[in-house]
Amino acid sequence: MSQVTSQHSSTYENRARMLISCPDRPGIVATVSQFLHDHGANIVQSDQYTMNPEGGMFFIRFEFDLNDLEKELPVLVEDFHRVADRFEMKWSTFRASRKKRLAIFVSKEDHCLNELLWQWKSGDLDADITMVISNHPDMKEQVESFGIPYYHVPVTADTKAEAERKHLELVSGKADLIVLARYMQIIPPKFIEEFPNRIINIHHSFLPAFIGGSPYAQAYKRGVKIIGATAHYVTEELDAGPIIEQDVQRVTHRDNIDNLKRIGRTIEKVVLARAVKWHLEDRILVHQNKTVVFN
Amino acid sequence: MSQVTSQHSSTYENRARMLISCPDRPGIVATVSQFLHDHGANIVQSDQYTMNPEGGMFFIRFEFDLNDLEKELPVLVEDFHRVADRFEMKWSTFRASRKKRLAIFVSKEDHCLNELLWQWKSGDLDADITMVISNHPDMKEQVESFGIPYYHVPVTADTKAEAERKHLELVSGKADLIVLARYMQIIPPKFIEEFPNRIINIHHSFLPAFIGGSPYAQAYKRGVKIIGATAHYVTEELDAGPIIEQDVQRVTHRDNIDNLKRIGRTIEKVVLARAVKWHLEDRILVHQNKTVVFN
Amino acid sequence: MSQVTSQHSSTYENRARMLISCPDRPGIVATVSQFLHDHGANIVQSDQYTMNPEGGMFFIRFEFDLNDLEKELPVLVEDFHRVADRFEMKWSTFRASRKKRLAIFVSKEDHCLNELLWQWKSGDLDADITMVISNHPDMKEQVESFGIPYYHVPVTADTKAEAERKHLELVSGKADLIVLARYMQIIPPKFIEEFPNRIINIHHSFLPAFIGGSPYAQAYKRGVKIIGATAHYVTEELDAGPIIEQDVQRVTHRDNIDNLKRIGRTIEKVVLARAVKWHLEDRILVHQNKTVVFN
Amino acid sequence: MSQVTSQHSSTYENRARMLISCPDRPGIVATVSQFLHDHGANIVQSDQYTMNPEGGMFFIRFEFDLNDLEKELPVLVEDFHRVADRFEMKWSTFRASRKKRLAIFVSKEDHCLNELLWQWKSGDLDADITMVISNHPDMKEQVESFGIPYYHVPVTADTKAEAERKHLELVSGKADLIVLARYMQIIPPKFIEEFPNRIINIHHSFLPAFIGGSPYAQAYKRGVKIIGATAHYVTEELDAGPIIEQDVQRVTHRDNIDNLKRIGRTIEKVVLARAVKWHLEDRILVHQNKTVVFN
Repeated sequence: MSQVTSQHSSTYENRARMLISCPDRPGIVATVSQFLHDHGANIVQSDQYTMNPEGGMFFIRFEFDLNDLEKELPVLVEDFHRVADRFEMKWSTFRASRKKRLAIFVSKEDHCLNELLWQWKSGDLDADITMVISNHPDMKEQVESFGIPYYHVPVTADTKAEAERKHLELVSGKADLIVLARYMQIIPPKFIEEFPNRIINIHHSFLPAFIGGSPYAQAYKRGVKIIGATAHYVTEELDAGPIIEQDVQRVTHRDNIDNLKRIGRTIEKVVLARAVKWHLEDRILVHQNKTVVFN
Repeated sequence: MSQVTSQHSSTYENRARMLISCPDRPGIVATVSQFLHDHGANIVQSDQYTMNPEGGMFFIRFEFDLNDLEKELPVLVEDFHRVADRFEMKWSTFRASRKKRLAIFVSKEDHCLNELLWQWKSGDLDADITMVISNHPDMKEQVESFGIPYYHVPVTADTKAEAERKHLELVSGKADLIVLARYMQIIPPKFIEEFPNRIINIHHSFLPAFIGGSPYAQAYKRGVKIIGATAHYVTEELDAGPIIEQDVQRVTHRDNIDNLKRIGRTIEKVVLARAVKWHLEDRILVHQNKTVVFN
Repeated sequence: MSQVTSQHSSTYENRARMLISCPDRPGIVATVSQFLHDHGANIVQSDQYTMNPEGGMFFIRFEFDLNDLEKELPVLVEDFHRVADRFEMKWSTFRASRKKRLAIFVSKEDHCLNELLWQWKSGDLDADITMVISNHPDMKEQVESFGIPYYHVPVTADTKAEAERKHLELVSGKADLIVLARYMQIIPPKFIEEFPNRIINIHHSFLPAFIGGSPYAQAYKRGVKIIGATAHYVTEELDAGPIIEQDVQRVTHRDNIDNLKRIGRTIEKVVLARAVKWHLEDRILVHQNKTVVFN
Repeated sequence: MSQVTSQHSSTYENRARMLISCPDRPGIVATVSQFLHDHGANIVQSDQYTMNPEGGMFFIRFEFDLNDLEKELPVLVEDFHRVADRFEMKWSTFRASRKKRLAIFVSKEDHCLNELLWQWKSGDLDADITMVISNHPDMKEQVESFGIPYYHVPVTADTKAEAERKHLELVSGKADLIVLARYMQIIPPKFIEEFPNRIINIHHSFLPAFIGGSPYAQAYKRGVKIIGATAHYVTEELDAGPIIEQDVQRVTHRDNIDNLKRIGRTIEKVVLARAVKWHLEDRILVHQNKTVVFN
């Protein structure tokens, strides 16, 4: 099977996105939309959120079309600095047609990886999957059949430091987003620093319940009636980064730990794929330890 | 118990909302937000939706604060006509502090009525409930204990025409929104014309499944595994008006028709209360037979 | 408004229920169902659950009709001791027509109380509500309008011991089940001992997330995308008793703490009412710190 | 990749299941459980449902362990005829370790097929997938990589009759269950007769809403706020067979038809996989046009 190209991107060749966070102040929307209009941009979607009209933070996302994007976007970006400085904005622009590069980390459970691969193959995830990295060799054949390179990097107490070097070397210049698709190793601070708010993990519980290991065993022991999964950006504190998406499913006393795991697999893969999709479409802003998701 | 005043409104005394629908065209957001800014309005929330960037419809909702709203809003409205004409807009403005007047119609089942009364008493529904009209006398005492007038207008084959006259007379000048809280009579076209997209009905099924009478009996017969309820604006075609909100709950083969009704009551009241709340907060635009809900 | 009698009970005048827990062993179902059959009982519902076929616990619930129940049930119960001893059973029988007496504790928030009262008035909760006890006087009129006694028992640092005595005195011989419908005081161990697995509390979070005070503020701070509520039996350890039921609803970054509270109120009242209903219908068995719910 | 064997079956080598439907009458449970006990069977799970205690139908499912099952089950079955005749039972027994043979039909959309294959490979679907039949050649390589035969049987107006013959020939003696995993052709009556209540279809709407073609386009046009999918047994009347499972997801005005399809794919595959799993575990009884699902 050869590498599959999503059909999405081409239809968006003149589409760009802009994400802005700044202290709220009168006139932001007017100024930015006038600015975009003056530069020939046609806003096709905008979403805005103010934490608190007086003195809070302001978040906005624009999706716009601009003729001759490749040439005109740099001009627009250059000119926008004046606006941004005036309002103390943190901001980014993205070209919708420029696919983000995705590196997926996985251990032995393949359901999240498979869902990402399948959605990507169907054109639902608008990305280039540049590699899959695993501490196990098991999924090599499966991944390579999609035309995607597979790197087996064993992680043991002895090889930990070397593995970390290897990881950084592999993704360097080849990944805009790291997805931990049930990768069961701790990510070292140095790696996290390289990808601030660009590493998405799926935790197999409804955080902040059941932080840490064996969440289904913890859930079974506590006798919860609903289980869940949480996709979040990875920060140094374990399972404590900004939550992007969560979902849940009802369980009963009949469900033993194996059942919880089985039911959980479906929740995990669906939640992770949604979070990745939103990141790829530049729908997520992070403020302090929370996310604003314009979906 | 005396009439309860919501604490919401006062905090919003300078808050206004604007709803706009128009054919999509470059520059709408820029123009309107610049216009609002020039008139001293501070946009605290905006939501926008384009059906299709090329040649589709465009919908936008602004929520903004304006100093000395009572005096300044009429000026702003007057000036906006030029903008509106230029873009062929259908538009409305609303003052958040001016409570909408609500008339509730009910028959014998009181769960939806009770939920509305309770949410209103808690300050969650920012409205003046000006009256409850029923074809039965049963809930008179209950409703009057909230300080709300209760009108018993019997509806029989003979008194139908008179009841319709009476209904119109009662609500005339006293209702901005009509809520059919399980009112089991057909609303005549003349009444509907008086309140276009301002009559909300709760249908006790997941529309368009089980249109018409006895939806729970229909659902039981069909053996569905999930039941639902639908809040929609009333149009002349039965149960076919624009859907505002729906919700569902899982059922099993063990649930007989009585159980479906019991489970359904909770769904109905929650769905209806959400739809009413959104209408009161000017979050709903209707286009053709569908709603855009900015919630 | 006079006290309302549910119409359920009368139709079940010959209906009894039996709950059994015991170590699993071959022949339990055969023995008990043969026993019931031999005593003239017609089983109309049975639910069974084995934690683990080899050496685990076994739980069964029978619902059966027995002619001349009042006279025959004591005979059946007397005879059952031999069966129970043989299988080391913990067991109870209940007459469906004998309504359980309910005492509701409430503080200032009335949504859970109202839901219980409304469901009881509609005949959905098959109980006698014998009293409402509150540390505030606010809901006296409201509760008494249902014909239910309301006891205002203030709880302060000084009056704590006295309040506890008063509570025990009030419910003594008048309550089979205690429902804490957003009662914001700690229940002392002595009271809990009097009602083992017969005090149901509603905690306004998806336990075990956000134990303790201000769960919505905690949820807001953590930035969760789903909030929930948990009904559980009260044990000495705060918010750690056996979970009976949980439910959740999706929220977004737009929802501030007030919104979370408002959305949560609907979840809380629905979850609590379900748990109470199941207890009243003898559908819940507790084993260690978990529940088996045959619903 | 070679064919994968589920690890489930071996642990169940002495496990059997019995499904019974009959008119309700006192003593059924007692008689059957005594019968099973007398034959050395240890009941590990039982579920029972009575439509109506007086004169309704009675449904029961037993799961039991029996030493030397291969030899003893035929004896038990032989002896059970007397019990069955006495109570006018429709009944079946199944050996848990004897995997059902599955034939999957698919057209061009592969999400449901992939989910089934993935769950099967993970050991979650305890079946032998004996073949995939498609009216398109597209998924041949994909399916064969799992070690499963793939038959491309084109269906055109001209070849219809021949295709039907071919289908029957292919599955004859090789399938206990047919799964239509988004197979977009009408199944002829003759084929349905061969597999009564043994053909599971996934319909991409929340039935009975949006029967027939293009349900997502219909849903978009109607402006529903929730979409769903329905797994049902196939009968001669289109989309009208007994419903096994349904699930739904919330959508908004922003979701165009493509989005509905994309969101729907996840619902479809999850719902279909659940229905297939329950059928494989003998958890479904059909009565008239409804299912009793003991899950």
